[in-house]
Amino acid sequence: MDFKSYIKIVENYPKEGIRFKDITTLMQDGKVYKAAIDEMTAYAQDKNVDVVVGPEARGFVVGCPIAYALEAGFVPVRKAGKLPREVISVDYGLEYGKDSLTIHKDAIQKGQRVLIADDLLATGGTIEATVKMVEELGGEVVGIAFMIELGYLDGRTKLDKYDIFSLMTYN
Amino acid sequence: MDFKSYIKIVENYPKEGIRFKDITTLMQDGKVYKAAIDEMTAYAQDKNVDVVVGPEARGFVVGCPIAYALEAGFVPVRKAGKLPREVISVDYGLEYGKDSLTIHKDAIQKGQRVLIADDLLATGGTIEATVKMVEELGGEVVGIAFMIELGYLDGRTKLDKYDIFSLMTYN
Repeated sequence: MDFKSYIKIVENYPKEGIRFKDITTLMQDGKVYKAAIDEMTAYAQDKNVDVVVGPEARGFVVGCPIAYALEAGFVPVRKAGKLPREVISVDYGLEYGKDSLTIHKDAIQKGQRVLIADDLLATGGTIEATVKMVEELGGEVVGIAFMIELGYLDGRTKLDKYDIFSLMTYN
Repeated sequence: MDFKSYIKIVENYPKEGIRFKDITTLMQDGKVYKAAIDEMTAYAQDKNVDVVVGPEARGFVVGCPIAYALEAGFVPVRKAGKLPREVISVDYGLEYGKDSLTIHKDAIQKGQRVLIADDLLATGGTIEATVKMVEELGGEVVGIAFMIELGYLDGRTKLDKYDIFSLMTYN
């Protein structure tokens, strides 16, 4: 399926010079959304994933249906102050600024096999921070799945120890 | 399945006197998360849903896998400034304050059958605002599904024209 034809390019969002890839136009078509999730799930099918981890909020729209399809758990990574119980946190740089991410301390058990999922691989800062927290909790990152990869930002180099799948790549 | 046994009650979060119902402990168990989504999906199965609409961010963790299971589209409702293209918006009161919600103007086609999904029915402000936007775009709200309903806050009275399903109710 030509998934790219369902992505809307939004010029100069969220700031001048950025060509934002809007996935909502893909998601609002049920058959296309399901086909996209199915292809990402197929990548992870043989990895015996216990838990899918995704950063808010677009990581949820990708990671939650993959978790459902794999019959795996889903663990949210959220901005500081958004999770109600004890967390660990890490600061990170992202494409357009800096922020802090958190995960519940009891969200992952030692030795669990973790798939990380997100909508977009840009510079890789968000996912690098997510990997760090998953590993601090004792999880094993068995794969990382993106709906879109911006090849020209070379986020892969930050994550070169890991197995990465991208449904679409823009170069 | 006794879903309530997987919910963690967090006292005094996000503020004094609130007994927050944390669903992350349910979601991190793959079998339980799937069973919860399956039961919510079963409610909607015969409604010929075209599109599931869910407010960020916890509405995504409920609504996206339901959309996937129904082979329906998913349309996000987000806080102001978070959607990249032209939106309509509505102000709303919620359990702990006030805010403004938005939806893409082209997200729903006239006559589409819409299921609204969220984690929690509290006072109903978020969902009342969501319904308003869906109807302004010409969508027909054929059902509203919650993971948790706080019966004592009586959010149902705000939504009494609609068909409501709750997986768990706290009274």
